[in-house]
Amino acid sequence: MRSEGILIVVSGFSGAGKGTLMKRLVEKYDNYALSISATTRTPRQGEEEGREYFFLSREQFEKRIADRALIEYAEYCGNYYGTPRDYVEKELSCGRDVILEIEIQGALKIKEQYPEAVLLFVTTPSAGELRRRLSGRGTETAEVIEKRLGRAVKEAEGIERYDYIVINDDLETCVEELHGIITAAHHTPGRNGEFIQTMRRELEGDQIEN
Amino acid sequence: MRSEGILIVVSGFSGAGKGTLMKRLVEKYDNYALSISATTRTPRQGEEEGREYFFLSREQFEKRIADRALIEYAEYCGNYYGTPRDYVEKELSCGRDVILEIEIQGALKIKEQYPEAVLLFVTTPSAGELRRRLSGRGTETAEVIEKRLGRAVKEAEGIERYDYIVINDDLETCVEELHGIITAAHHTPGRNGEFIQTMRRELEGDQIEN
Repeated sequence: MRSEGILIVVSGFSGAGKGTLMKRLVEKYDNYALSISATTRTPRQGEEEGREYFFLSREQFEKRIADRALIEYAEYCGNYYGTPRDYVEKELSCGRDVILEIEIQGALKIKEQYPEAVLLFVTTPSAGELRRRLSGRGTETAEVIEKRLGRAVKEAEGIERYDYIVINDDLETCVEELHGIITAAHHTPGRNGEFIQTMRRELEGDQIEN
Repeated sequence: MRSEGILIVVSGFSGAGKGTLMKRLVEKYDNYALSISATTRTPRQGEEEGREYFFLSREQFEKRIADRALIEYAEYCGNYYGTPRDYVEKELSCGRDVILEIEIQGALKIKEQYPEAVLLFVTTPSAGELRRRLSGRGTETAEVIEKRLGRAVKEAEGIERYDYIVINDDLETCVEELHGIITAAHHTPGRNGEFIQTMRRELEGDQIEN
């Protein structure tokens, strides 16, 4: 009962572990395709073209905007970030569930264009735990941590706009929850129109024959 | 992340195996409570008061209707059938997921009163399989089978009113799908209001402190 692919948008607090979750989900189940964003920022050490991002010049990026080749884009700190349309639509049409990791403004833009998209919000079990994880990385300054917590306050305002909320306490449990939610979404009547029509035709045929 | 119980309404074609599915689901997981209907029909051999049904006189049943002690009721072939409100609400408030097996008219009445109820439709993989299962029971006359198939045509018209559709091909697989769908439903923001509010308060507290 897997027909069309589902577009899955994942947002959540910075530090909630979205990246690790998505990586594990894609590793564990083969029905997922992870969307790769395009960006104009310069690659960081170890980042590879087409793996972390598609790295574009500002000119190339603006051409994509003009061509409507991005389903959403935004500008942060002077750099563009966006979602290439071709990859998403190709994978969906092959019946794969496409995952986008994106913040709330982008998520809502996606929902406008793809009303059947499933929006997931990932959170830590508590605010204290979020702070611990942000501090625990040891790579961020106190200032950056405060900035992220400040952004979390903003992000928390939008939680009700999401279809589902998942708590990332234990990684494997959370991966199973995400997979369960997406599997359930495949069972809506809207995503099984063909099966329902066939069933109706057959039942009516059965009636006429007998 | 299990707070309030969910009211689950299960409908589906006669012969799709709803009864067996529900029994197995309740046996396998302890978060479910199976609602027992009240009826004015006489008990069949082997049926026990309070197990299959609560058997009431017509007078007793009509008193319950007048007292609004039933969340829905209907009359079939001269007998009343209805869902006692007290049991459903008690179990929901204890955080258990309450399952009602009921036909579409009743299902829609429930959704009006409990908009958060989850409506599930159970079907066989095909119309042919439905006919085989109805015939295979060996206990029904050809006339009864035709009548049930005729009713299935009507029931199939309403599938889009349901939240989810599940195909009962293999019993255990289908039980897992049902359980997965209900588990997913526990993750909507609407069912996690308390968690979200606490998270917001804590995040804002964190902001003020620092």
